[in-house]
Amino acid sequence: MNHPDVIAGGYADMRAREVVWARYAAIRATTMALAAPLSVEDQCIQPMADASPTKWHLGHTSWFFETVVLQALDAGYGLCDKRFPFLFNSYYEGLGPRQPRPQRGMITRPGLEEVLRYRRWVDDAMEGFIAGCSEPLWQQAVSLIELGLHHEQQHQELILTDIKYALSLNPFDPVYLPASDSAPQESAELRWLVFPGGMATVGHGGDAFAYDNECPRHQVFLQPWQLANRLVSCGEYLAFMADGGYRRPEFWLSDGWAAKMANNWECPLYWRQETDGQWSLFTLHGRRPVAMTEPVCHLSFYEAAAYAEWAGARLPTEFEWEAAMANVAVEGHFLDTAMLHPMPATVGEGLRQAYGDAWNWTRSSYDPYPGFKPLPGVIGEYNGKFMVGQLVLRGGSCASPSDHLRPTYRNFFPPGARWQFSGIRLARDL
Amino acid sequence: MNHPDVIAGGYADMRAREVVWARYAAIRATTMALAAPLSVEDQCIQPMADASPTKWHLGHTSWFFETVVLQALDAGYGLCDKRFPFLFNSYYEGLGPRQPRPQRGMITRPGLEEVLRYRRWVDDAMEGFIAGCSEPLWQQAVSLIELGLHHEQQHQELILTDIKYALSLNPFDPVYLPASDSAPQESAELRWLVFPGGMATVGHGGDAFAYDNECPRHQVFLQPWQLANRLVSCGEYLAFMADGGYRRPEFWLSDGWAAKMANNWECPLYWRQETDGQWSLFTLHGRRPVAMTEPVCHLSFYEAAAYAEWAGARLPTEFEWEAAMANVAVEGHFLDTAMLHPMPATVGEGLRQAYGDAWNWTRSSYDPYPGFKPLPGVIGEYNGKFMVGQLVLRGGSCASPSDHLRPTYRNFFPPGARWQFSGIRLARDL
Amino acid sequence: MNHPDVIAGGYADMRAREVVWARYAAIRATTMALAAPLSVEDQCIQPMADASPTKWHLGHTSWFFETVVLQALDAGYGLCDKRFPFLFNSYYEGLGPRQPRPQRGMITRPGLEEVLRYRRWVDDAMEGFIAGCSEPLWQQAVSLIELGLHHEQQHQELILTDIKYALSLNPFDPVYLPASDSAPQESAELRWLVFPGGMATVGHGGDAFAYDNECPRHQVFLQPWQLANRLVSCGEYLAFMADGGYRRPEFWLSDGWAAKMANNWECPLYWRQETDGQWSLFTLHGRRPVAMTEPVCHLSFYEAAAYAEWAGARLPTEFEWEAAMANVAVEGHFLDTAMLHPMPATVGEGLRQAYGDAWNWTRSSYDPYPGFKPLPGVIGEYNGKFMVGQLVLRGGSCASPSDHLRPTYRNFFPPGARWQFSGIRLARDL
Amino acid sequence: MNHPDVIAGGYADMRAREVVWARYAAIRATTMALAAPLSVEDQCIQPMADASPTKWHLGHTSWFFETVVLQALDAGYGLCDKRFPFLFNSYYEGLGPRQPRPQRGMITRPGLEEVLRYRRWVDDAMEGFIAGCSEPLWQQAVSLIELGLHHEQQHQELILTDIKYALSLNPFDPVYLPASDSAPQESAELRWLVFPGGMATVGHGGDAFAYDNECPRHQVFLQPWQLANRLVSCGEYLAFMADGGYRRPEFWLSDGWAAKMANNWECPLYWRQETDGQWSLFTLHGRRPVAMTEPVCHLSFYEAAAYAEWAGARLPTEFEWEAAMANVAVEGHFLDTAMLHPMPATVGEGLRQAYGDAWNWTRSSYDPYPGFKPLPGVIGEYNGKFMVGQLVLRGGSCASPSDHLRPTYRNFFPPGARWQFSGIRLARDL
Repeated sequence: MNHPDVIAGGYADMRAREVVWARYAAIRATTMALAAPLSVEDQCIQPMADASPTKWHLGHTSWFFETVVLQALDAGYGLCDKRFPFLFNSYYEGLGPRQPRPQRGMITRPGLEEVLRYRRWVDDAMEGFIAGCSEPLWQQAVSLIELGLHHEQQHQELILTDIKYALSLNPFDPVYLPASDSAPQESAELRWLVFPGGMATVGHGGDAFAYDNECPRHQVFLQPWQLANRLVSCGEYLAFMADGGYRRPEFWLSDGWAAKMANNWECPLYWRQETDGQWSLFTLHGRRPVAMTEPVCHLSFYEAAAYAEWAGARLPTEFEWEAAMANVAVEGHFLDTAMLHPMPATVGEGLRQAYGDAWNWTRSSYDPYPGFKPLPGVIGEYNGKFMVGQLVLRGGSCASPSDHLRPTYRNFFPPGARWQFSGIRLARDL
Repeated sequence: MNHPDVIAGGYADMRAREVVWARYAAIRATTMALAAPLSVEDQCIQPMADASPTKWHLGHTSWFFETVVLQALDAGYGLCDKRFPFLFNSYYEGLGPRQPRPQRGMITRPGLEEVLRYRRWVDDAMEGFIAGCSEPLWQQAVSLIELGLHHEQQHQELILTDIKYALSLNPFDPVYLPASDSAPQESAELRWLVFPGGMATVGHGGDAFAYDNECPRHQVFLQPWQLANRLVSCGEYLAFMADGGYRRPEFWLSDGWAAKMANNWECPLYWRQETDGQWSLFTLHGRRPVAMTEPVCHLSFYEAAAYAEWAGARLPTEFEWEAAMANVAVEGHFLDTAMLHPMPATVGEGLRQAYGDAWNWTRSSYDPYPGFKPLPGVIGEYNGKFMVGQLVLRGGSCASPSDHLRPTYRNFFPPGARWQFSGIRLARDL
Repeated sequence: MNHPDVIAGGYADMRAREVVWARYAAIRATTMALAAPLSVEDQCIQPMADASPTKWHLGHTSWFFETVVLQALDAGYGLCDKRFPFLFNSYYEGLGPRQPRPQRGMITRPGLEEVLRYRRWVDDAMEGFIAGCSEPLWQQAVSLIELGLHHEQQHQELILTDIKYALSLNPFDPVYLPASDSAPQESAELRWLVFPGGMATVGHGGDAFAYDNECPRHQVFLQPWQLANRLVSCGEYLAFMADGGYRRPEFWLSDGWAAKMANNWECPLYWRQETDGQWSLFTLHGRRPVAMTEPVCHLSFYEAAAYAEWAGARLPTEFEWEAAMANVAVEGHFLDTAMLHPMPATVGEGLRQAYGDAWNWTRSSYDPYPGFKPLPGVIGEYNGKFMVGQLVLRGGSCASPSDHLRPTYRNFFPPGARWQFSGIRLARDL
Repeated sequence: MNHPDVIAGGYADMRAREVVWARYAAIRATTMALAAPLSVEDQCIQPMADASPTKWHLGHTSWFFETVVLQALDAGYGLCDKRFPFLFNSYYEGLGPRQPRPQRGMITRPGLEEVLRYRRWVDDAMEGFIAGCSEPLWQQAVSLIELGLHHEQQHQELILTDIKYALSLNPFDPVYLPASDSAPQESAELRWLVFPGGMATVGHGGDAFAYDNECPRHQVFLQPWQLANRLVSCGEYLAFMADGGYRRPEFWLSDGWAAKMANNWECPLYWRQETDGQWSLFTLHGRRPVAMTEPVCHLSFYEAAAYAEWAGARLPTEFEWEAAMANVAVEGHFLDTAMLHPMPATVGEGLRQAYGDAWNWTRSSYDPYPGFKPLPGVIGEYNGKFMVGQLVLRGGSCASPSDHLRPTYRNFFPPGARWQFSGIRLARDL
């Protein structure tokens, strides 16, 4: 799934038409590759309101280009199918009525074949538009295309997390992809790195792409803090469980305990205690025993916060995370490998697993930055309207495309969400 | 979809192996024909807890033969797949744990192809067993096979009603089958037939197949009554609607009014008022205008009872219905035609639409007959355990196989169910 | 709480004004006596949607006389308070909007004192009306007053069952009334009485008062049956529990098992297993150990039916019950004693506990009788509109007034209701 | 309800025993005064899970002193009633099991009289303890007593907001207190005050009382901002409504729009459009017309944010609010007056309504401050465990005691809460 020539970043002009098209083609191809192991039926169902069918993701990402670029800027563009805007609009109130989200799995028609044809229709139109539009139009289009590509990459991650949840409801543990060779099981020791605090500049500032929610770049004042060098491992989490982590409310936020009780949480999502007492977990490569050194993931914020409390630590704020990571290269274990599960931290100095493997829940609510302005027009609905009741996650996961991430990237989910690859990196005061 | 040689009933021995096999082959083929117009995706989804995926019906009906006949009686039989009993058990507590009913639509694997292979596996085994089992085994098996065939026929009707509900959730009114030539729109006048009452014998008595819930045959004492010669038409129902039928609680049972309010019922299921004020309805042949003379259907018992109250009449009891129909031939408009929607009553004397078109809601709760005994073993769960909280329907519908019905046949659904082809035949006291 | 002169039944004219007034005064006084042990706060709260505050019962029963008699027939009557019809209408759609049933406990104003003043206002007006109205008006009024008195008696039972439920939610087992001397614990042996079947006449026929749902009197044909001489005891029910009664779905109706699972039923309502393993139960006289010989009560229909199945028997139909009791005197253990809990069956021949102690769940759905006609006008909503989804109970309970019952009396509740004094009498086929 | 000698703040020693006792007596008396207009029934009911009965507040505040002070430090103290800790523990997991919150209204016994006796019992014990405990104990106790008094003041506000909600469910608009003379209706003009930004120090720092959630005092860096001089008025809010505020999703956060749709919000809580089109509102002084110049209140955060979006502004962050108010005296319209509803802003320069009238929803999620440490022991559950999913409100309301507030005070509620006196102060970027 690599497109190394494009993502290298050494290009003189990332806005050149041929570069944009190459990126477009590569990213769209990656999406198709993610769907390839799935049957027509796999791609149709919706396992819960929050998780969409693969087929819907395939259609929705195409609709985004169709709506934001082609319909807006290409006077000669004709809709592939006049029903599709209704079906594949996700949540844009400014773009009219749409299929109710919990009913996305009821759309058996159009079938997958028709949706794939839709993708090709849009790809063909995009290719023509990119090659042939006037320069003024191009200047308008290029940022929107870039947005569409990052949008598509977000949906690549969702395709994986959503289908994982869907397959997990099958009582027979189906395999999305056969596992590659098993990962090394040695892991870095847990160590604390110290940061001095003071003024820090956070948020996105340059010309490169970023979402509106990362802006504007601004100063914050931080107290000194410590950050763990790696993610919390399954072995460490099992110690929390063995110490009554899921039975002792004193570790939990009030809403967290209520969620735990209401949902009978006794372990991370996808874990199961076998009859011999051992723990197994369901992965995209099937079910297997839990490995002690691998990062724990598929945790809610509530569980992450309870674990941190038990461990005598806390979760980092998003700015502590960002300031600590500011000079760390965006390297790690991403979607671009064939191992679709977090792996143990490699041994070494400094911050391990800075990016990839599992998202880091932060202790920061997803609030707007000072001076935040949504993008103009309907794409202003992209991020801003979700800025309440959610928590920020940082860093990316094994299901994130490698070129999708940056230090300023803000992911966000409600505190009870568990179906993302979400884990824990601890922080503490000095 | 006909198998006239088999259903004619003139056979000397309906229990002869070749007759049973011919019926088996014909009925199983009909099921396959019902699925034929559906895509793989259509067959996978579950639109509500009460309605199952087509694929599940295909598997479940095969599982029934596998479990009740082959596993019970054929020592040499090997399971097609050891996962299938879990997946395709519907509600038999005596047969172990099973896929939760509301999660039947999450089963993308096995895929449709595997389920079809399962059908063939079971068919092959049944063919071998029927041809080759010992005579004592045959004597045990033949009633169970007969039960399995009637069971399959019930699921044929459910395949149609469930897929109709599923397709209706698609905002674009997909067509299950193109409509054949339009039906004649003339209809019989509504007339009242008089029955004198007195002792009547009801329930099933002979050697022919019947479900346990139709037994034992017994005597009841009836007051004189009148019965409408045909089903209530859409035109008549529109008069009820125009007279405030859905706004006037005085016509409704208390639970019915609560259901109406909770679900915002304003018309029969699948009806919609168009912008020009006209009513359309969704059928298996697509959406079209409501015809005045066709029977109204997809009504809950609550709506049927409210209509009857408004009309100054009532619904018949199941025994009034059965006594009236005792000598009426089981003829009508069934699944065996290509018109999968009720049609206007043909002009003529006597009871019209006695069978077929639309099930007749009765005023009888689904209680056990005096002396009722469930079948022995796990098939005892077939009917008896549902005998509370449901109402009896009589007569069959346009989605019932013609050879599945009898005067004593008791269908049953909760009073709020609307997705069956359920309509109204009025009764009144003398 | 006795009014023996009135209930003796030896009066020449039960419709004479002084007799009616005496009954009115006595029944209204009984209601007040039932409220006497309760604090103002006790009388205000509503513990669930189905159970109303005592204060509401006090107001509603007065509203019934005000509305059905005084407003309808007494031209000079002035409303006590124009807000009260809204507050105290229960479910009569024909009488305008009303306080939503689940919100009856939110009415702190009017306070209890005002509601008691309302009772006195209505009583004064009734006294004047009964004494002074013209004879033609009296002829209209007397049946309505009789209906109002039976209505009030029904609410006497509900006052007790509703406050029992409310007090049971208090973690400290409050006592409604101190227990009188303990009852004899010996009980009749379980024996089966045989009935030959054939034509039976059921339903109410004479001039005496009955509800519309008991009419018309009509013939039914019954198969021979057996009926247990007494109610099922707690000791017998404990044997069912010990045999896995609440863990074995094979005994349960499908809806019953679902209700059991959804509500975590493991024993009758108000039972609790103490730390020493013994069972206690909460009564209106406080919490005490379960006595083996006393009748089990506070069961749902589902539990009653499961017990019967386990016991190799069944529940009687309402007509089997009525035919068996036709010549049994309406005697037993009623509200008129100070023991507000079922007592063991006294030793003796024939049917014990025919009336009183605990209602007998029957196997009959609450359907209309042939030729049933609701009462004219708004009181037509009294019974008929509830004739779906409920089961008939017969016989009365320890909370029923003794002069409220008859062989033809049909009580009815949904199959999951447990807060009434509802128990089990077994039947079986011959 | 004043206790001016105590609150003046000019005391040499706020920790002196006689000062503490005087404050204790005054605050406890204020609570009693708030309950005085309510009937026994009013004080018993619980209108929703979030709103507690007055009687429960009376008991719970006493339980707090009993548990945190008397049981912890007074060896000679004997519990008033051993049932009360179970009944009146609110949410302290460390203090054992407790009455479920939604069932607080089911406690009719103990009655109000017993709870009042409990208050006196605790008051007597506190008086003896304060006067007589050893000096080392006093040093431990004084902070806990102070916490208990602020705790009681919080519940004073809740007594008013909870009973307002309860009375609002009565269809006849009961009056809690007769209105005093009507307020002047003139209001200050809306003006924008400019703040330069830069480093600011926020949070509580000195020796005076503050909750743990206000600590530690720390530095933040702020961008320049503007703040409205007063709260948004009803007239301004009506303009939002008239412009489709409740019909146009573009103004709303996504969760806010979902809440609006699910709850059918069309106006602030307690508002009602009369048949003549005019708006009325329910207040603790009864129902009256909406006044254009009074502050709008009983809004959710979602509505506040939607209004701000419509107005081309935003809500302030909690630090913008705190920095702006740092030097503004804590003066305004509080509980200590007889007008229990927000009043129009008085005409004048500078920030109006800085404190009192209506809480200011801020744009800040309720997150922990850097270095936040909960109090030791069970009182550590006081604030910290609620730090997710809630929004900060600042400033106080007409139902807040005047001496309960400070610039650093952080109130917090979920974004959908509307039953507090919560309003809007606008901010915007420079």
